[in-house]
Amino acid sequence: MTEGAAAVPRGMFITIEGGEGSGKTTLIASLTEKLKQAGREAMITREPGGIPIAEAIRSVLLSRENTAMDARTEALLYAAARRQHLAEKVIPALERGTTVICDRFVDSSLAYQGYARGLGIEEVAEINRFATDGWEPDLTLYLDMDPEAGLARISANGSREVNRLDVESLAFHRRVREGYQLVAARSPERIVTIDAMHPADAVAKEAWEIVAAKLS
Amino acid sequence: MTEGAAAVPRGMFITIEGGEGSGKTTLIASLTEKLKQAGREAMITREPGGIPIAEAIRSVLLSRENTAMDARTEALLYAAARRQHLAEKVIPALERGTTVICDRFVDSSLAYQGYARGLGIEEVAEINRFATDGWEPDLTLYLDMDPEAGLARISANGSREVNRLDVESLAFHRRVREGYQLVAARSPERIVTIDAMHPADAVAKEAWEIVAAKLS
Repeated sequence: MTEGAAAVPRGMFITIEGGEGSGKTTLIASLTEKLKQAGREAMITREPGGIPIAEAIRSVLLSRENTAMDARTEALLYAAARRQHLAEKVIPALERGTTVICDRFVDSSLAYQGYARGLGIEEVAEINRFATDGWEPDLTLYLDMDPEAGLARISANGSREVNRLDVESLAFHRRVREGYQLVAARSPERIVTIDAMHPADAVAKEAWEIVAAKLS
Repeated sequence: MTEGAAAVPRGMFITIEGGEGSGKTTLIASLTEKLKQAGREAMITREPGGIPIAEAIRSVLLSRENTAMDARTEALLYAAARRQHLAEKVIPALERGTTVICDRFVDSSLAYQGYARGLGIEEVAEINRFATDGWEPDLTLYLDMDPEAGLARISANGSREVNRLDVESLAFHRRVREGYQLVAARSPERIVTIDAMHPADAVAKEAWEIVAAKLS
């Protein structure tokens, strides 16, 4: 027997998924507030999350010079940045007993690279299983929304300019949504779909009920 | 039927594998010369091979600041650099009908990361199958050598200083050799083991006979 510190129960690992304009940021702020009121310490993060190696990898992904990047190279780099962020930031927090809310995780890669870019959901899942090495979210909230409504919301919000990519690739965003729906159907025990066309406070209320039920 | 250019037969893809000091560089120079004499165009390469995205990934791998790099992140980054080098340099050359000799390829990752670093040969093979997407070497020459002899050869050559890592981690280099032997045993139809303890000209002669037989 070891003396001293009692074993800390592992924190809950929650991921938030959804397309552009589906309201992830708003929901995360509301969930964090509710967790705080319930006396739970929560950490919000999003890859690369300030982890230097993950940030360096993200720089390679985002560099404007790297237009020749192959789709498989891209998927491997996202998995590499994910691994480092998980190992250095998420796992230590969970082991300290902190609730971790992560804005996008493996399911984003499955929907975007695996399905919408056509690499194959199962193939992208394979490299992500290597990256996560058994660490799965306890709960994933997927904010399902019509992509046209999502893009309109971004535009109305003025939170950022709707760029040319958003408009030109509506077909791409529709495939992302189909990808998410397929991924959600594969893991019904982990992924809960929330209708993000509902008002933000209704979405926040529904999400909190799901999280609170899981916590208790 | 298409008019014009006749279909070019695909070039042969040869990879050279082995531990430190096993004589890969010497053998590659000799093979290239023999191919030239036989009237074959050959391209020698080695990841990242001057491909900007692969070089950028390699910089992240080699940066002295990145001491906190997780072993799985490292394996994913090697696979990402491999993918880009393959897509931009190796596949186009093979499709032009050029013989490609690549100094280290997937088997290095299996021996070093998969076996010697303990990630698992099958797991590292999985992410590399994603990276190579069906492109396999037609022939792999594995230069098998006792690691102590290999390190002694580097030292005697004066080709580079034997560094502290070489000396301190003899046990690691022994595991690399075991890893290579296991990998070679898994793919006897592709990987030919050459006893690299033999003199360089005997190794070159044996290797050329194997390559020439495969070419004809």
